[in-house]
Amino acid sequence: MSELRIAVVGAGLMGADHIIRIQKRIVGAEVTAVVEPDEGRAKAALENAPAAKWFPNIEAAIAAKAMDAVLIATPGQFHEPVLVPAIEAGLPILCEKPLTPDAVSSRAIVDLEVAKGKQLIQVGFMRRFDQGYINLRELIASGKQGELLGLHCAHRNPAVPDTYHNDMLIFDSVVHEIDIVRFLTDSRIKSIEVKHMRRNKLSPEKLNEPILALLETEDGVLATVEMNVSVQFGYQVKTEAVFQKGIAEIGRTAGMNTFFDGQIATEEHMSFKTRFAAAYDTQIQRWVDATKLGKIDGPSAWDGYLAAAAVEAGVEALRSGNKVQVVYTVKPSLYNS
Amino acid sequence: MSELRIAVVGAGLMGADHIIRIQKRIVGAEVTAVVEPDEGRAKAALENAPAAKWFPNIEAAIAAKAMDAVLIATPGQFHEPVLVPAIEAGLPILCEKPLTPDAVSSRAIVDLEVAKGKQLIQVGFMRRFDQGYINLRELIASGKQGELLGLHCAHRNPAVPDTYHNDMLIFDSVVHEIDIVRFLTDSRIKSIEVKHMRRNKLSPEKLNEPILALLETEDGVLATVEMNVSVQFGYQVKTEAVFQKGIAEIGRTAGMNTFFDGQIATEEHMSFKTRFAAAYDTQIQRWVDATKLGKIDGPSAWDGYLAAAAVEAGVEALRSGNKVQVVYTVKPSLYNS
Amino acid sequence: MSELRIAVVGAGLMGADHIIRIQKRIVGAEVTAVVEPDEGRAKAALENAPAAKWFPNIEAAIAAKAMDAVLIATPGQFHEPVLVPAIEAGLPILCEKPLTPDAVSSRAIVDLEVAKGKQLIQVGFMRRFDQGYINLRELIASGKQGELLGLHCAHRNPAVPDTYHNDMLIFDSVVHEIDIVRFLTDSRIKSIEVKHMRRNKLSPEKLNEPILALLETEDGVLATVEMNVSVQFGYQVKTEAVFQKGIAEIGRTAGMNTFFDGQIATEEHMSFKTRFAAAYDTQIQRWVDATKLGKIDGPSAWDGYLAAAAVEAGVEALRSGNKVQVVYTVKPSLYNS
Amino acid sequence: MSELRIAVVGAGLMGADHIIRIQKRIVGAEVTAVVEPDEGRAKAALENAPAAKWFPNIEAAIAAKAMDAVLIATPGQFHEPVLVPAIEAGLPILCEKPLTPDAVSSRAIVDLEVAKGKQLIQVGFMRRFDQGYINLRELIASGKQGELLGLHCAHRNPAVPDTYHNDMLIFDSVVHEIDIVRFLTDSRIKSIEVKHMRRNKLSPEKLNEPILALLETEDGVLATVEMNVSVQFGYQVKTEAVFQKGIAEIGRTAGMNTFFDGQIATEEHMSFKTRFAAAYDTQIQRWVDATKLGKIDGPSAWDGYLAAAAVEAGVEALRSGNKVQVVYTVKPSLYNS
Repeated sequence: MSELRIAVVGAGLMGADHIIRIQKRIVGAEVTAVVEPDEGRAKAALENAPAAKWFPNIEAAIAAKAMDAVLIATPGQFHEPVLVPAIEAGLPILCEKPLTPDAVSSRAIVDLEVAKGKQLIQVGFMRRFDQGYINLRELIASGKQGELLGLHCAHRNPAVPDTYHNDMLIFDSVVHEIDIVRFLTDSRIKSIEVKHMRRNKLSPEKLNEPILALLETEDGVLATVEMNVSVQFGYQVKTEAVFQKGIAEIGRTAGMNTFFDGQIATEEHMSFKTRFAAAYDTQIQRWVDATKLGKIDGPSAWDGYLAAAAVEAGVEALRSGNKVQVVYTVKPSLYNS
Repeated sequence: MSELRIAVVGAGLMGADHIIRIQKRIVGAEVTAVVEPDEGRAKAALENAPAAKWFPNIEAAIAAKAMDAVLIATPGQFHEPVLVPAIEAGLPILCEKPLTPDAVSSRAIVDLEVAKGKQLIQVGFMRRFDQGYINLRELIASGKQGELLGLHCAHRNPAVPDTYHNDMLIFDSVVHEIDIVRFLTDSRIKSIEVKHMRRNKLSPEKLNEPILALLETEDGVLATVEMNVSVQFGYQVKTEAVFQKGIAEIGRTAGMNTFFDGQIATEEHMSFKTRFAAAYDTQIQRWVDATKLGKIDGPSAWDGYLAAAAVEAGVEALRSGNKVQVVYTVKPSLYNS
Repeated sequence: MSELRIAVVGAGLMGADHIIRIQKRIVGAEVTAVVEPDEGRAKAALENAPAAKWFPNIEAAIAAKAMDAVLIATPGQFHEPVLVPAIEAGLPILCEKPLTPDAVSSRAIVDLEVAKGKQLIQVGFMRRFDQGYINLRELIASGKQGELLGLHCAHRNPAVPDTYHNDMLIFDSVVHEIDIVRFLTDSRIKSIEVKHMRRNKLSPEKLNEPILALLETEDGVLATVEMNVSVQFGYQVKTEAVFQKGIAEIGRTAGMNTFFDGQIATEEHMSFKTRFAAAYDTQIQRWVDATKLGKIDGPSAWDGYLAAAAVEAGVEALRSGNKVQVVYTVKPSLYNS
Repeated sequence: MSELRIAVVGAGLMGADHIIRIQKRIVGAEVTAVVEPDEGRAKAALENAPAAKWFPNIEAAIAAKAMDAVLIATPGQFHEPVLVPAIEAGLPILCEKPLTPDAVSSRAIVDLEVAKGKQLIQVGFMRRFDQGYINLRELIASGKQGELLGLHCAHRNPAVPDTYHNDMLIFDSVVHEIDIVRFLTDSRIKSIEVKHMRRNKLSPEKLNEPILALLETEDGVLATVEMNVSVQFGYQVKTEAVFQKGIAEIGRTAGMNTFFDGQIATEEHMSFKTRFAAAYDTQIQRWVDATKLGKIDGPSAWDGYLAAAAVEAGVEALRSGNKVQVVYTVKPSLYNS
């Protein structure tokens, strides 16, 4: 096949980023459609994809046969109305996380995909493509250091925009750890509980954070997640894994060391855009390559559903202060492999 | 004053170590009495302190006026019968942690000291003399990085002896973090809760660990403590502090870096004896210096009591799986300063 | 322009690597010709570039108009007979280092390019595209830490093949530092001197190494280069820069830290293929992008000539044990910019 | 023996430091005499050693039998007139480096000691008591990583006082590496050569530095020494050792890591007083302990002489720009052991 023709849905920050990525760094793909209701935003995005056409909605793009595959980069609450027609049209989809905002609607998408009889959806949990997590997963799977017993995750942002509200601590941020803990352990999240650190007064008033989420997997691994969105100093995502015979950690910064003013220092990232730049590129390249072969090569709709179910329990845990069990429906055979 | 004459009570591993320390590395002190019921052990210890005399019990040593001060290095359950006569004799005391095994008996010691009208007891929480914790405490107190919000502590041993049982996870090991969290925050422990990681099958059968203890201080700092006594790889004690504006960590290993066989590596400690060697020396030197001036220069009997109260709650939390509030009695004015 | 059609000349290790790179990771380019006298090697290479055609020599490929640009990946002594017809055909060229093996023949290439009136050649000094060197160059240029005074470079290979001989220490290995020192300092190498460390008995018998090369730039910076090709432990390339006000270093390994068996360790690279993978990709992507715009975006033929002149002095310094001044001819105005 | 009675000769910065050290941190010794011509300085020093007596010169102190041993802390050019009467009186001596300022006078001291028939002098090369150098020496001696081939030393000061002049780069500063290279390799310095980095304009006008000294040992190890006394950023002394099978480095800073303002940072030392505090303490404690047993436990007068001979060659190398061979006289049998 020649170039994979991609429709990017949503031309906000994330979508615009993906357009540049596909045009400049991804081999074998091109953006041929930008689906975006806002004309101004669409026009700005098209500057980086001059050959692409603008469509105000997904139906129009499908009708025009403008693409071979769809990349959904809108906010989570707008995913479902794009997913449904795209699935019905049989188009391969890379859907930014979350699949949908709750377990019921995510299950509905799963059911639709099952009805279609073919896996079309990959969910954008891009950390699975980060070399650090891949190395750690391999070390766990190797058994070389004995069983994995626990995980300590820290997820720190310098600051968040005003639109960020309390539940987003779980469904927008901890959701990454919810997926990655399962990726690392190959075990589902069984329960979630949320504790509070002393509130950071530099955080927006409506937020009560940092929090400590405690995730328990079905095979007994305890994962702690420090979720901290106003830590000022930088963007830091790291994980320390506790094994029977030792410890491994990923996510510490590297780069030039400078020795000035009495200090030896290394710069930390300030944004996910640099911290996970390579992971985003790899994710999309592998999705493009797999799509051309009619395959999925990353987290599936089922992974998206499992995360949605755990997120729902997590939000309840955050609100109630209780430990909340995660409830899952039965796994369709389409996802056995 | 010339040399401070010290009676070391208990000539087990810890006592024998302290005898060598005082004789070889501490200025202005000498061991003049070894109090130990077991004659063989006493004789062995006396080889490192040839001028010292052997006493089978503390009363005999007091009667002989064999010392100016007492260092208690027996197991915790044997502290009280030594503390009482030593306090009554008005002798300055350095008592290895714990002060006593429970809150009631610790309070009784506090009351006895209060009745005596003078602080005589220093408790052996030696981490307060470790440069890392001192630096971290200064950074917290400085306010330079904003308020302290949380702490992540890890306390890892390669292995433990057969005599180590489950409650000791709290009263023998986490007790160090119980004291150091208060030292760092200047706030008392308000509640304790204990979670379990997946059990380490390399741990002795009677132990269910590693555990994660959650300590909440009265001013809202949340401290997590990974207590892990069979991690095989080394002895590691470290703390990561979460501030409003950033992070600080202490306890990472330093030393020679070697670049061999495809790896860049640094050695970790294998025992508290090397990890905290300098802290033990500093603790005893400062105790000796202060004692000569009739003062205490370290954690008091009151600190010992507070730790005992929190430990009691911690053991209950470990056994019950519940979050347990710590109950404290009223602080005597003797400890205001 | 659509895809840039590239002829890869030489299908050995390096050439095969570049073919995979262009096909799988470079946007906007494809391999359309493989120029290689050995048919078996050519066939093997064509498996990764099914649409490419095989040519036994460059002249045939040019005659067939099989490409828009040429990537030369043969050993250095075979560069000239490819460069000359390619320049005459006006084709953009990315030529692996060295430009040619000596200063006279490099100058001849420069003269040919000057006669053609247009810069066509970029030389494959890929370190200029390594983020570490880029960061260091920016720090130097910023003047923030004062003037640069000296550089300490280490260039370490685990081992070298049997074909590696003593002069290659300079023309195959130190040549990278010769170029990068100029890149970092924006000053030419003025003199070279070579000292010997104690010989490594694990090195092939014909080699007398590690060596210490001392490069002096025209503006007074002294660079030391430890060239060490049998150090067994890994592939390590690092630079420490000495400024008026401090130090900066690049090239220390990063990645997962493991804490096992009493050691905290990080893996080192074992080959330039992983150490400089990103630099190779960036180099070729930028060359492709620039070529489409009719530009050079990297080290020029003039840079290749300057390196050749310094290498010649370096080989003489290695053989004689003396400090050797580098002699340069006059710079053509084509390279002023 | 009870307390070793020490006369400290010279009550400047170094002497005052040693007085405090002996009084506060060294077991089994006390300062009983301060030898210092300047009465004000002597009085100030006596405040930290109230039991000591003041003597304007060494002869008076000897006549008064005021001490069992002598610690010489005056500048190097004043060592000889103290050493001679102290040796003649048969007193054990710890003499700050250098033994004397030149090879001839150092040899004279050696001859005097030989005539006395007993080793009395230990020279204050305190780096031999630094744990980093000790670990590195053990690694070299173990042969585990093959032969040692080369060393890269860096010796960096933030700044130097106005009294510091150019030759002091060698005899006051590089002298430490001259001794430590021999300590690490167990081989004498065979030749010295000095190169210049670009001059640091922040250095005092009379200094032309940083320099790069090249030390060659008799068994073929090449040591590079970056001597840099105006680097502003901190006090850093480190060594990287090149083995047949890998690399080891000592002297990188450790301590609290802080993560603020986009940087992960560790503090560097600002002075030898903290960098080598433990080494100074260990040196003096071991000297005191050995002295009580009538022994030397550190670098001897012969080591002091060897350093003086190499320093003399080094100063000539600095002035001439040539490689200078070091000339040694015959080793007296007193120093065989």
